[in-house]
Amino acid sequence: MNELTESKNFITEIEGSVTAPKGFSATGDHVGLKKKKKDLSIIKSDVPAVSSAVFTQNVVKAAPVIWNMGVINNKICGIVVNSGNANACTGELGFKHTEIMAQTLADCIDCDKTNIMVNSTGVIGFHLPIDKVVEGIKKLAPSLDTSREASKRAAEGILTTDTYTKEIAVEFEICGKIVKIGGIAKGSGMIHPNMATMLAFITTDIAISKQMLDKALKESADDSYNMISVDGDTSTNDTVTVLANGMADNKFIESDDENYKKFKTAFDYVNKYLAKQIINDGEGVTKVLEVLVKGANTKDDARKIAKSVICSNLVKTAFFGEDANWGRILCAAGYSGASFNPNKATISFSSLGGNITLFKSGEPLNFDEDKALQILRERKIQITLSLQDGNEEAAAWGCDLSYDYVKINGKYRT
Amino acid sequence: MNELTESKNFITEIEGSVTAPKGFSATGDHVGLKKKKKDLSIIKSDVPAVSSAVFTQNVVKAAPVIWNMGVINNKICGIVVNSGNANACTGELGFKHTEIMAQTLADCIDCDKTNIMVNSTGVIGFHLPIDKVVEGIKKLAPSLDTSREASKRAAEGILTTDTYTKEIAVEFEICGKIVKIGGIAKGSGMIHPNMATMLAFITTDIAISKQMLDKALKESADDSYNMISVDGDTSTNDTVTVLANGMADNKFIESDDENYKKFKTAFDYVNKYLAKQIINDGEGVTKVLEVLVKGANTKDDARKIAKSVICSNLVKTAFFGEDANWGRILCAAGYSGASFNPNKATISFSSLGGNITLFKSGEPLNFDEDKALQILRERKIQITLSLQDGNEEAAAWGCDLSYDYVKINGKYRT
Repeated sequence: MNELTESKNFITEIEGSVTAPKGFSATGDHVGLKKKKKDLSIIKSDVPAVSSAVFTQNVVKAAPVIWNMGVINNKICGIVVNSGNANACTGELGFKHTEIMAQTLADCIDCDKTNIMVNSTGVIGFHLPIDKVVEGIKKLAPSLDTSREASKRAAEGILTTDTYTKEIAVEFEICGKIVKIGGIAKGSGMIHPNMATMLAFITTDIAISKQMLDKALKESADDSYNMISVDGDTSTNDTVTVLANGMADNKFIESDDENYKKFKTAFDYVNKYLAKQIINDGEGVTKVLEVLVKGANTKDDARKIAKSVICSNLVKTAFFGEDANWGRILCAAGYSGASFNPNKATISFSSLGGNITLFKSGEPLNFDEDKALQILRERKIQITLSLQDGNEEAAAWGCDLSYDYVKINGKYRT
Repeated sequence: MNELTESKNFITEIEGSVTAPKGFSATGDHVGLKKKKKDLSIIKSDVPAVSSAVFTQNVVKAAPVIWNMGVINNKICGIVVNSGNANACTGELGFKHTEIMAQTLADCIDCDKTNIMVNSTGVIGFHLPIDKVVEGIKKLAPSLDTSREASKRAAEGILTTDTYTKEIAVEFEICGKIVKIGGIAKGSGMIHPNMATMLAFITTDIAISKQMLDKALKESADDSYNMISVDGDTSTNDTVTVLANGMADNKFIESDDENYKKFKTAFDYVNKYLAKQIINDGEGVTKVLEVLVKGANTKDDARKIAKSVICSNLVKTAFFGEDANWGRILCAAGYSGASFNPNKATISFSSLGGNITLFKSGEPLNFDEDKALQILRERKIQITLSLQDGNEEAAAWGCDLSYDYVKINGKYRT
């Protein structure tokens, strides 16, 4: 079944986020890395959880990313996250600091440091004030609890320049057992990518094998976090982590069966929600864009084209200027690396303001500029590129490129 | 020998451009595609010339690009170029228009249409006013001449939003014979990439085989036009063409010998000059950046890293803001796809304002912010990234991302 039209009726959104699934507690508070806002969060699983993560593909990986790559095949008991400092490009001392963070939380919750994951987000190239972080972890650990309010604190503690928390929780049934998934996230390369690494933490009480959890996360990230773009820059710290502790007591999932498919659909729902929330919360963003590529020859081609269009500075500035410049969309599709026949392509826009076709089967149309402007004045705009080359499709999400993007990024570090 | 340190003493810059080599004439004038400025140019070789070209890699290719791909293996007698309209995304009628342009010039200079190359640059998605173009070619052809002034007219006729013409000519000796190379170019994705396709036309009177000319152009373009970037968008019309008519009467070059190497060095000199002129002439550009990657493991790695840094929006906005944000440079190098060890990397800036090292062998330095600002206040800035991974190096050229970029591109088409 196609993901864009797949039924999601069996999924119910519920209150809360990472503490909604059974056996997860969380907390977050201010420990002194930022001036006033919360800057440290902890998530804990009552029983060691199967974990999976996708990490930045950047060759320059922050110290905590390298740590996590080393422990990801262990069962995980806790995650500690600081904001305000990325602990990236910090040399050998940076790695020591990460290890100290893991050891400190391990001591507090009584496990081995190799059962702890560590994440940092913030400015690059400065050493962590490690004493404050250690004190903070010790102070915070006793406040871990399973309440809705605790998950909110955790969602706040991971933020950098985000203007609101990003949280979701869902539940669904597998053979009579209720399974829950909860997640929190913080913004990516929106406006402050050097600070605002994209981080997402998902908890679930489903019982699932490491192998199937890896498969689900890899595929789900490809359709969600990997299909959003603000400026194309991939940070040194980007990480998505999922912990599955098995406490829902469902029939153990260890193959690509019906139960797995249900979980995967709900997991996609959570990840796409968080990914779109990240796009929506960019300072300087005046337009939120969805690019739908239909009729591609392969799924990979559809993804490449959608991503190329959403990443084009020329496309982004045109939408900022509310200019129906469809030529830039075709041009960006053309250099995506995917193959298609431009003589069969059709481009249309839609929003709350209506819908319009600008280019049809390879020929430019004489369209109504006033009608186009009415569509482009809305904040949320959908761009559809139909290729008539096959049956595959993909969606990507992004934003425009505004004066504020340039302004804020021109003076970020200082 | 390394290209960055290679001796170029034997090359002399001379007056003029495409009419400097023996047997080439040119012209350019206003024929009615733009309001007032020159919008049509012709270059002619007295004898059929061996030709080579590199074309845009965009899947969406304008009609003239497809035409040229079909005739490039023929000997070429003339090139006709219009500005003001790209003849791209114009369906079947667009192809007919290109053929009519070729036929019209062929009739005027007495050759077959398949010995004519056609280029168009300007806005995408509108049909050419073909009657004006045909009239213009007929009117202009009789004014073809070999003067310096004629080459200037041709250089003007290909411009779109460029603020000045880009011209160069050089001469050098091969076994007692004087060989000349001349070139003109117009700007790329600087501010109006959708209009301002990058075009370059090189003429030379050297006697050389098609095979060696192809090799020279491919390699030279990789180190010049392919190492400049303004916004990463690849247009539908980008083309670099070289015609070699053999009238210098030198010993025919048909292998990778000393004479070929001399030609290649002079050819590189011409192409890099034109490429850097394109960067320098961007509206909205306040900083001209050169990225030097040294000590890379392979040439390909060096190129990838230099290109990734020069293309990063975060790097570009930081230079616009005169912010010494070296973390963004390392980050962009990290996601280039090239492999290197960030723990051995060193980053420094230099300009007329001085030079400074910010990150050394994987460790951040406590640098003098005032000194950094003094360097970043200059218009031309060199960024050096030393990797200590090998002996290969590459250079890339680009510019900052300014308010004006967003402003002009947000309202270009209308």
